[in-house]
Amino acid sequence: MAMTGVLRPGHVQIRVMDLEAGVHHYRDVLGLEEMGRDASGRVYLKAWDERDHHSIVLRKADSAGMDFFGFKVDSEATLNRLEADLKQYGLTTSRIPAGDLLETGERVRFEIPSGHQIELYAHKSFVGSDLGQKDPKPYSPKFDKGIAPMRLDHALLYGPNVDKVLEIFTKVLGFHLAEFVTLPDSDIKGALWLCCSNKAHDIAFVVHPEPGKLHHVSFYMESWDRVLRSADIMAANDVKVDIGPTRHGITRGGTIYAWDPSGNRFETFSGGNSSYPDMPPIEWSWEGLGEGGGLDVAARKMHETFLTVVT
Amino acid sequence: MAMTGVLRPGHVQIRVMDLEAGVHHYRDVLGLEEMGRDASGRVYLKAWDERDHHSIVLRKADSAGMDFFGFKVDSEATLNRLEADLKQYGLTTSRIPAGDLLETGERVRFEIPSGHQIELYAHKSFVGSDLGQKDPKPYSPKFDKGIAPMRLDHALLYGPNVDKVLEIFTKVLGFHLAEFVTLPDSDIKGALWLCCSNKAHDIAFVVHPEPGKLHHVSFYMESWDRVLRSADIMAANDVKVDIGPTRHGITRGGTIYAWDPSGNRFETFSGGNSSYPDMPPIEWSWEGLGEGGGLDVAARKMHETFLTVVT
Amino acid sequence: MAMTGVLRPGHVQIRVMDLEAGVHHYRDVLGLEEMGRDASGRVYLKAWDERDHHSIVLRKADSAGMDFFGFKVDSEATLNRLEADLKQYGLTTSRIPAGDLLETGERVRFEIPSGHQIELYAHKSFVGSDLGQKDPKPYSPKFDKGIAPMRLDHALLYGPNVDKVLEIFTKVLGFHLAEFVTLPDSDIKGALWLCCSNKAHDIAFVVHPEPGKLHHVSFYMESWDRVLRSADIMAANDVKVDIGPTRHGITRGGTIYAWDPSGNRFETFSGGNSSYPDMPPIEWSWEGLGEGGGLDVAARKMHETFLTVVT
Amino acid sequence: MAMTGVLRPGHVQIRVMDLEAGVHHYRDVLGLEEMGRDASGRVYLKAWDERDHHSIVLRKADSAGMDFFGFKVDSEATLNRLEADLKQYGLTTSRIPAGDLLETGERVRFEIPSGHQIELYAHKSFVGSDLGQKDPKPYSPKFDKGIAPMRLDHALLYGPNVDKVLEIFTKVLGFHLAEFVTLPDSDIKGALWLCCSNKAHDIAFVVHPEPGKLHHVSFYMESWDRVLRSADIMAANDVKVDIGPTRHGITRGGTIYAWDPSGNRFETFSGGNSSYPDMPPIEWSWEGLGEGGGLDVAARKMHETFLTVVT
Repeated sequence: MAMTGVLRPGHVQIRVMDLEAGVHHYRDVLGLEEMGRDASGRVYLKAWDERDHHSIVLRKADSAGMDFFGFKVDSEATLNRLEADLKQYGLTTSRIPAGDLLETGERVRFEIPSGHQIELYAHKSFVGSDLGQKDPKPYSPKFDKGIAPMRLDHALLYGPNVDKVLEIFTKVLGFHLAEFVTLPDSDIKGALWLCCSNKAHDIAFVVHPEPGKLHHVSFYMESWDRVLRSADIMAANDVKVDIGPTRHGITRGGTIYAWDPSGNRFETFSGGNSSYPDMPPIEWSWEGLGEGGGLDVAARKMHETFLTVVT
Repeated sequence: MAMTGVLRPGHVQIRVMDLEAGVHHYRDVLGLEEMGRDASGRVYLKAWDERDHHSIVLRKADSAGMDFFGFKVDSEATLNRLEADLKQYGLTTSRIPAGDLLETGERVRFEIPSGHQIELYAHKSFVGSDLGQKDPKPYSPKFDKGIAPMRLDHALLYGPNVDKVLEIFTKVLGFHLAEFVTLPDSDIKGALWLCCSNKAHDIAFVVHPEPGKLHHVSFYMESWDRVLRSADIMAANDVKVDIGPTRHGITRGGTIYAWDPSGNRFETFSGGNSSYPDMPPIEWSWEGLGEGGGLDVAARKMHETFLTVVT
Repeated sequence: MAMTGVLRPGHVQIRVMDLEAGVHHYRDVLGLEEMGRDASGRVYLKAWDERDHHSIVLRKADSAGMDFFGFKVDSEATLNRLEADLKQYGLTTSRIPAGDLLETGERVRFEIPSGHQIELYAHKSFVGSDLGQKDPKPYSPKFDKGIAPMRLDHALLYGPNVDKVLEIFTKVLGFHLAEFVTLPDSDIKGALWLCCSNKAHDIAFVVHPEPGKLHHVSFYMESWDRVLRSADIMAANDVKVDIGPTRHGITRGGTIYAWDPSGNRFETFSGGNSSYPDMPPIEWSWEGLGEGGGLDVAARKMHETFLTVVT
Repeated sequence: MAMTGVLRPGHVQIRVMDLEAGVHHYRDVLGLEEMGRDASGRVYLKAWDERDHHSIVLRKADSAGMDFFGFKVDSEATLNRLEADLKQYGLTTSRIPAGDLLETGERVRFEIPSGHQIELYAHKSFVGSDLGQKDPKPYSPKFDKGIAPMRLDHALLYGPNVDKVLEIFTKVLGFHLAEFVTLPDSDIKGALWLCCSNKAHDIAFVVHPEPGKLHHVSFYMESWDRVLRSADIMAANDVKVDIGPTRHGITRGGTIYAWDPSGNRFETFSGGNSSYPDMPPIEWSWEGLGEGGGLDVAARKMHETFLTVVT
């Protein structure tokens, strides 16, 4: 009760075309800690305030993008129940054996109608943060190594059939809808901000003709000051920025969108609304998304890249 | 699923000895919006980012303190189920009729072994924030009226039998324990930070011989900058400060403790850890609470008022 | 000694095409305090942390732009001496009688080779800030009325003959050069950041074929948090933004460029380098201004409006 | 003209009783860069945004405290003129040869009536910041090494004859008085905040029976967020804090007072008023200093250590 079922975004596997350039970006510029590499060459990283073994997995591939996005659930019982519920809903699920990802238990994988591979799992080894679990100090130099986000926060995914995705996440997986955008001259929800917590969102979708695309993986910064610091570090490291710093009207979070060396967009994000399942979702018109500042409170326009550049 | 059962702190009824001085404090200095007064003279207020009708209720009384602290639950079904569970656990519950608090449905009230009156309810009228639900603007002058917290965040309560309180909140109400303090030279948990969300905490307890005492009611500020602004406004309005600005080691939140005109402590709080039920709680020794900075990262000492001044 | 001669930017007269729209912008949105109107209909305003009678003067006119920019000097003796020095340098000066601007003494006006009218004056009535001069409180609600900058900080002016402007400001008026930009494939200084204090700059120039143009008038914000708040307030009031929030590489200040209703650009600016006359100026190449982040650390490009839109 | 004469605090020589403990504190915890050691064993350090060779000199001694505080002046001519003016005022001056301090020119030293050794010098080698002088990047990891202040900001010194000190700094050295505190039931200025720039202050004095005492050396932080970060780093390194984080009413700066291993107090300071010589100084009563929040806006009391603990 209270927080049950799906707990939070747990891991995302990102495809990079040059592994060492990717490692340099995520480890040395973003400042994640390298936690290990597996037999297939994948590189595992975690943010300083995360406690489980890793949240980011980099895989060398011929094209950029996201292989899968995984949520941690509260127990094996929940994993089994949700797998059954997903099947009953009509989705095909498969089991990835424990150990396929380092320090991670068995995963239930399924493709949602937007073309994305989503995973649930109940176990990833607890490694703790650098501060320890007993009488922790308030600071470690790791907090300032590179951009140094606190955690993987969410992802925004692009693909078709967003209406069905909404149904799966809210009816089967127990998420609530925090905010949405309707398509032009329509009541159809074309973009969704979905929560399994009281964060601003844990995953988001925008309707798009091509399935399975990644818009961005987002990392949480402690403050708007730290978002500016992330811009400074991007500049010092020639990381190309897409949008920001600015505030999203949607979520009210501080943001910078930028690209990793393979062209995968990532975000440094701060603040943001709290959301609860009893609150009606906030509705944005298509014009509200652009001219209304839903995407960018300062510029109040639709940035063309927002709708067109995905991996 | 995901967020279910008990959702969040919903209301707290605070006793003030001079009603208009209390209204001046909570409305004009703290900057909450007065939402109504009832036939018995109670005054209802809400913070600008809250969506339900009110969160703070002021009642004129001969002594300061807290009458009750209420949590919103996700449905009437949950209300009924939790009432049954509380009874089965051995607590006595009572029903307060809908309408006893303005715009609020039926409440289930029970006394926990620390001597506090806790309530659950499933309905409070949604009034929304000043920004509206459709294409909201990012700013309203209400964000800057007085201290202007975003929301009621939590309360810290003092009383005996904290071990039983832990059991009730975790076993019956579905909270998880985020952090705790052990008593000197002991494994006994003497202080608890409990969550029904992924916030740093939603309610906290410290063991104390006298039952039913209020340590503080906490209000959430958007940033550490806004915590400093709250100090400025306290100074401009002769609000007496107890501790801070500083950071709590416990929760990692920014904080100021101060007193309302009746001597009830309140807090302006920012940031803070995220917590999840699968993470082991952080353990603080008694020395860690004081010299270890659990209470005050900067001063790293036990402030005498922390343990002795309650209402 | 120490701080002598020219002290600081003191006033700027801005042409607005719709006076009440201008007053609404500068008073109600920007949040300056209206201090008076004169017989010719000009409107005088000051920022909350300014102590002299006004810093912004709005004049209704058929075209937008800046009439003149005035610096306060430390004494009548300095005023006389600088007037003589300016004449000796070869500039024509004129005296505007005391009282022409409300609460302002006699002004020495001269046109610099960029085509701008610059003024010096030694007296403007001290009115103090809202906090008073004795045992001031740390807060007044005026700090949060609208965008609420602390002060007029500087202006950026566009015009020809920037080399001569540099000579006048450094050789005659005693400014030092903090940063400059060289033109493409050239050692010619095409942009200047000039200081009469240890601020990041007090006035700046960019070379431009048309004389006497205003790029922006800048207002100082207490923090980067307050720059974001200014974006929120711009959005809530439909103020069009040009660039930002971002950091300028030049000056290292936080910034938003936006437009008043007449198309005059203004800036909300925070932080920024300190500068001293013994430090060699920081040199930016033309590429450094654009791709090197001199203008915009995040976007690292030349925004086309930066070079083309002036009033 | 504009900024002339005395430019800024340039160096302070601090006595530490355990040199390596002192170096650890100033270099590894505070995060200054070690720039060299001289034949007598003194250690030279600079802050990341300083451009001259060093600002802090540590000398091993049997007692803590300050040996001397030096201001940089704009030229040798000024150095000679100020020396003559000081002599004419009646002070005894001496010349310390160039090279006595590493990379520093000849210094004029004099004892002021408060018992402090003050120095003026015109040359210290320009070494620049880590960012370089041409097309600088906005970030270097040095910005986050330890507490990482931007610069030596000021010192607060305790001693007798503060009235004469005021006269010397304003009449001879060209400083202006920004704020002052009158002694209880008196018009006598017992504390002075003095400026040679438009900073909140460059040096301050409090009347005290014992001559030549150091209250604190202050380091400038980029923001209030960075002041909190400094508290975190102090806690992680067991640095004992005296007061703060809080805001001073006097100067309006954010502050933490803490002690180095030898008991010398230092400050991490942010923000603060701007001041100009034409503005009347802000007056604080003795009660305003304490209960009025002049020292501590939040606590609004006289902290006993403020008046009694000096080195």
